[in-house]
Amino acid sequence: MAGSPAARDHPLTRASFKQGHQRDPMTAPTDPIQHFASDNYAGICPEALQALIQANTSGHEPAYGDDSWTAQVCDRIRDLFQTDCEVFFVFNGTAANSLALASLCQSYHSVICHELAHIETDECGGPEFFSGGSKLLTAKGENGKLTPDAIEELVTKRADIHYPKPKVVALTQATEIGTVYTVEEIRAIAAIAKRRHLKIHMDGARFANAVATLNVHPSEITWRAGVDVLCFGGTKNGLPVGEAVVFFDKALAADFAYRLKQAGQLASKMRFISAPWLGLLDNGVWLRNARHANAMASLMAERLAGIPGVSLLFKPESNAVFAELPAHVASALRAKGWRFYQFIGSGGCRLMCAWDTERETVERFAAEVRALCAST
Amino acid sequence: MAGSPAARDHPLTRASFKQGHQRDPMTAPTDPIQHFASDNYAGICPEALQALIQANTSGHEPAYGDDSWTAQVCDRIRDLFQTDCEVFFVFNGTAANSLALASLCQSYHSVICHELAHIETDECGGPEFFSGGSKLLTAKGENGKLTPDAIEELVTKRADIHYPKPKVVALTQATEIGTVYTVEEIRAIAAIAKRRHLKIHMDGARFANAVATLNVHPSEITWRAGVDVLCFGGTKNGLPVGEAVVFFDKALAADFAYRLKQAGQLASKMRFISAPWLGLLDNGVWLRNARHANAMASLMAERLAGIPGVSLLFKPESNAVFAELPAHVASALRAKGWRFYQFIGSGGCRLMCAWDTERETVERFAAEVRALCAST
Amino acid sequence: MAGSPAARDHPLTRASFKQGHQRDPMTAPTDPIQHFASDNYAGICPEALQALIQANTSGHEPAYGDDSWTAQVCDRIRDLFQTDCEVFFVFNGTAANSLALASLCQSYHSVICHELAHIETDECGGPEFFSGGSKLLTAKGENGKLTPDAIEELVTKRADIHYPKPKVVALTQATEIGTVYTVEEIRAIAAIAKRRHLKIHMDGARFANAVATLNVHPSEITWRAGVDVLCFGGTKNGLPVGEAVVFFDKALAADFAYRLKQAGQLASKMRFISAPWLGLLDNGVWLRNARHANAMASLMAERLAGIPGVSLLFKPESNAVFAELPAHVASALRAKGWRFYQFIGSGGCRLMCAWDTERETVERFAAEVRALCAST
Amino acid sequence: MAGSPAARDHPLTRASFKQGHQRDPMTAPTDPIQHFASDNYAGICPEALQALIQANTSGHEPAYGDDSWTAQVCDRIRDLFQTDCEVFFVFNGTAANSLALASLCQSYHSVICHELAHIETDECGGPEFFSGGSKLLTAKGENGKLTPDAIEELVTKRADIHYPKPKVVALTQATEIGTVYTVEEIRAIAAIAKRRHLKIHMDGARFANAVATLNVHPSEITWRAGVDVLCFGGTKNGLPVGEAVVFFDKALAADFAYRLKQAGQLASKMRFISAPWLGLLDNGVWLRNARHANAMASLMAERLAGIPGVSLLFKPESNAVFAELPAHVASALRAKGWRFYQFIGSGGCRLMCAWDTERETVERFAAEVRALCAST
Repeated sequence: MAGSPAARDHPLTRASFKQGHQRDPMTAPTDPIQHFASDNYAGICPEALQALIQANTSGHEPAYGDDSWTAQVCDRIRDLFQTDCEVFFVFNGTAANSLALASLCQSYHSVICHELAHIETDECGGPEFFSGGSKLLTAKGENGKLTPDAIEELVTKRADIHYPKPKVVALTQATEIGTVYTVEEIRAIAAIAKRRHLKIHMDGARFANAVATLNVHPSEITWRAGVDVLCFGGTKNGLPVGEAVVFFDKALAADFAYRLKQAGQLASKMRFISAPWLGLLDNGVWLRNARHANAMASLMAERLAGIPGVSLLFKPESNAVFAELPAHVASALRAKGWRFYQFIGSGGCRLMCAWDTERETVERFAAEVRALCAST
Repeated sequence: MAGSPAARDHPLTRASFKQGHQRDPMTAPTDPIQHFASDNYAGICPEALQALIQANTSGHEPAYGDDSWTAQVCDRIRDLFQTDCEVFFVFNGTAANSLALASLCQSYHSVICHELAHIETDECGGPEFFSGGSKLLTAKGENGKLTPDAIEELVTKRADIHYPKPKVVALTQATEIGTVYTVEEIRAIAAIAKRRHLKIHMDGARFANAVATLNVHPSEITWRAGVDVLCFGGTKNGLPVGEAVVFFDKALAADFAYRLKQAGQLASKMRFISAPWLGLLDNGVWLRNARHANAMASLMAERLAGIPGVSLLFKPESNAVFAELPAHVASALRAKGWRFYQFIGSGGCRLMCAWDTERETVERFAAEVRALCAST
Repeated sequence: MAGSPAARDHPLTRASFKQGHQRDPMTAPTDPIQHFASDNYAGICPEALQALIQANTSGHEPAYGDDSWTAQVCDRIRDLFQTDCEVFFVFNGTAANSLALASLCQSYHSVICHELAHIETDECGGPEFFSGGSKLLTAKGENGKLTPDAIEELVTKRADIHYPKPKVVALTQATEIGTVYTVEEIRAIAAIAKRRHLKIHMDGARFANAVATLNVHPSEITWRAGVDVLCFGGTKNGLPVGEAVVFFDKALAADFAYRLKQAGQLASKMRFISAPWLGLLDNGVWLRNARHANAMASLMAERLAGIPGVSLLFKPESNAVFAELPAHVASALRAKGWRFYQFIGSGGCRLMCAWDTERETVERFAAEVRALCAST
Repeated sequence: MAGSPAARDHPLTRASFKQGHQRDPMTAPTDPIQHFASDNYAGICPEALQALIQANTSGHEPAYGDDSWTAQVCDRIRDLFQTDCEVFFVFNGTAANSLALASLCQSYHSVICHELAHIETDECGGPEFFSGGSKLLTAKGENGKLTPDAIEELVTKRADIHYPKPKVVALTQATEIGTVYTVEEIRAIAAIAKRRHLKIHMDGARFANAVATLNVHPSEITWRAGVDVLCFGGTKNGLPVGEAVVFFDKALAADFAYRLKQAGQLASKMRFISAPWLGLLDNGVWLRNARHANAMASLMAERLAGIPGVSLLFKPESNAVFAELPAHVASALRAKGWRFYQFIGSGGCRLMCAWDTERETVERFAAEVRALCAST
């Protein structure tokens, strides 16, 4: 049995990855693979890599964020949101979400989220761990989105000390199924949150994709709409590693630096975590990357929509397409080496586009689907 | 106040870092700075950077460690230690130590360590947090090292349920003050650990430096000497980010992958964390880097030893030199832009050499010390 | 607002308790109240109180359980179960369940339970807190009971490290809705637990009532049926305070005494927690108490069943009756001072009988229901 | 091996307790034993027992503190301190201290206490556990007492995020070695706490003894002197079980009821925990009990002081006497059945007096010491 975490990873994806292990990784393949398993299968975008390399040319730099690169990126993020805010860098999304939530509630509090939220389904209890036991209260909701009514119902369901007291609403923007909250939807949730004294956390692992979709200023769907803290995703947008936690309510960030340090989320050579953000933020690369991924998903949806036997499961509003494929088609695609997540007991396939997905790859995939569907 | 963690960083170092903020980080300095504050001020070594860049050329790769790079590095580490072992990658040393310790004890257990151990003095309670409250029992000990007798005393001091039960001995190799445990010293500690049913954890943030000093096979000071789990430091050895947790007792690694995931330590684009290790492990770069840092420290010690008014505080056995400088000399050095840690209320200065410290820098520093001492 | 926890207690019950505050508590009422809110509204049964008083006559006694009373009760419980087992005393049910579960799983593990389980609905996240974040995976199930199939589904739903790994099945015996697992049902669950490497925890807050209902030896529904650890309820059976945690798998109890101490669950004057158990265990008082409570519930069910407009919601198998009363009848009963829990948005009423519930009280209540239903 | 916690209890006391196990506990001894091991070896004082019995005469009562007894005791405690405050009842001192501290700090904060403080030495890491990892920073200090200077030193020692940030000063009143902080000493500590933004927690397991010694109003050494939260000890003062947590700064008690519930510290039949307090608080029994215990300690000190070969180790200011006895004398006393704690590697003996210690017992003990010393 392999010693790496890899060996016990997501079983849904395991079978199709066997090939990868055969390649000699030190030899650059002539034809880099771009499939649809996840936007975190993508590499580092050129601008981010360039900034990382650049950060390595200045010799020694103070550690733990006291370097000039980190200061610069923090300022750039404040500029981006057009407000003063506290910015921290962490290594991944589980840490970003878990630590942000932990700063908003105590162990005997609870967090309201959608039943499909990443914090509920894919962080192995990270939010519960870092908060010391806070409970996630899940709600159903169309298109993977929470509604004010669902929140109100969960808040008012119990008001006794035998059940954790709701303190936070956690939104995912864009959602796990590729939909996007509108400005109005977030504001409506913020109104009920205000009335019920709930803080609003936004899991923005794909925040860039949502901004690209809505075509609004980033502030419009964050602090101007009532969001207290944003986990601003970098990895899926083209970074090698790292997310930013942005506190719009600065009071909530009190001693957060200590929390990060204790939680093993303070990089010593911080500049290699922060500098790549410059590559994304300069010249709007982050939005360009997101728009491209979204466009590829739109293209995919368009191509698949017309194929007999294929149906789209949700309206693709960001960089994911969920499509129902005939089971034998899905199998055949996998056999041909295509990679994508499939959900147990269903023919539902998630096709995720990334900053680097090429139009040609989408067209080729869609053509194969069309051919397979036709040949049945 | 700046929003980044930087603003609240180690106060000892703050004053001297002001200059750094003036430089335009996007402009490569003609003369990269190499000072003596810490080996985590150094950059990425060329081989590690090259491997990272290389890992970005193969297109999409499975996430969470199920990529070919990660598998390869795990095997390389097993080869290095000449034994089957479980290997996991985490983002930094606090996480490595805290999670390794948490896998060895429950909240009502305790960990025996030296009073100068990093887990006690510089991880902001990380070990206590991740273990749910395990207590660190500290011992004094010459040269920053634990002794069998000190361990025995702590184990036998209490045996009632009103005090946490010792379960782990944590060694730092090389120690915080630059000394190194010999093979014999570790074996002697392992003997008492065996008798008292304690596991042995090794904080190897500077493991490479210790191996270089002792000139032994890495297995000789780890599993062959009784170590159960090693936190194998990569960052200080030339990586951008990341440490490896190596379980020689594989049973202790049961479900450790879940622990990592929950703790926010599982990288999604894992190959950018793991691949740089290839740069270190191929062609013995890790040892070359460590030997160089050690050699620079030896040179520094040699040069300083002969200067009237300067005395060395500990025997420099790895890449750190602790020297007592006249207070005005230390001040003058800082004023000239040299960076190093000074300990409160004393003239003790820590001069840390890195994989990239240049002989010329050492010579120039020592010359300045000599001149300043003479001019008093 | 009152400073005591009382002021923020279960809101469902608050309104009806106002009267209680008017009475002078130092004056024994001529007519002690016996209503149907909860079996933990009942007092101390005479035999338990007598044992407590007796334990106060022997002068000083060693603290923390090293007294003769505690040793005696532990032995008595071993005799009761006809097996060697480890016995610990804690202060309440939340502590018993939470600490037992914490000893069976790590923070990244999960516990399978019914969606109505007390650990899920009424312990304010205690299990999550004490385990450091373990997730409760809830299943639906008729009559408030888990089934092997429901467990199998939850165990096999996910097998990746992004979701907590199931480690424990938690059964409640008798269940929250007054039903009872048969010996066969427990054995069937144990079989699937064995196959899936799950431990079995039994929340026996009303274990006595279940034994009384099934009329089997206590061992038949615990260790002989595959239960690893039982939280044996004392409070609802007639104690002033306290539950016993009984580990049939003694290996699971390793260092549990440390866990209790750290968790604030080790009584210093332990004999006042343990000795009252003698009152229950001697002469089978615990079973007599349970049989009486069960009989009163049966009587209540019988009386209510025949009333037009009233329907029973579940088959009453222990000491609870769940009945659907017309809303105005429930209101009228409350107005007359009767106390019972009502579930939000429904006319469902829980009528809980205790060891001291008198036949006359049941008859009087049923008569009032009949009269109120008739007068509509 | 016995299954009860007893079997692994405090080893210092184990040997001498063997006899106790021979007695038939159901038979009231003609001569109740009163020795000097601990004030928690004592029983329930008559007034507390009477109140408990009385609370059992009123039939059913609301659970979880919503009963009339609990409300009454809370008001009585507010009257006692002459201020509005929030009062909560918990089961023991470890829970009281740990939960109070957890409400004052986060996991990355620290608590300053004396190196002999019970929270450091005898709660098995309870404070670390309930706070999620907060570190205890210990100071030395004469007579077991913290000083403003020692606090200032610990607060200013580190100010970087790599070390937990001090948030609380924890005082023990009376201290572990029987001394008592004066009003002035507490005020001086409060002044430095105010300047350094630290909260003040008081472990008052023997608060009554301190009040009795100082002969001041209880408010003078608590909120009037700057204490934020007091753990008001009941068990050692004559209760069967239970302590009160009194928040003078009511804002700090926000959601504390949830914390208690989650932590397994909310009694369901609360009146049996709270009512006994009435027995203590009515007619000043709590002070009478404390004064008696103090007087017995004074008598003991007086009698021992004059014996050649015996020396007192600390000034006995409350109910404990620490005396250095010749080793053979201590052994002989133990052989005769006297129980007291002895500290490893020393002849130091702790002689603790309780509310029920009889003058005759003290005289008899002192006489035996005198005789044994003389016979050497």
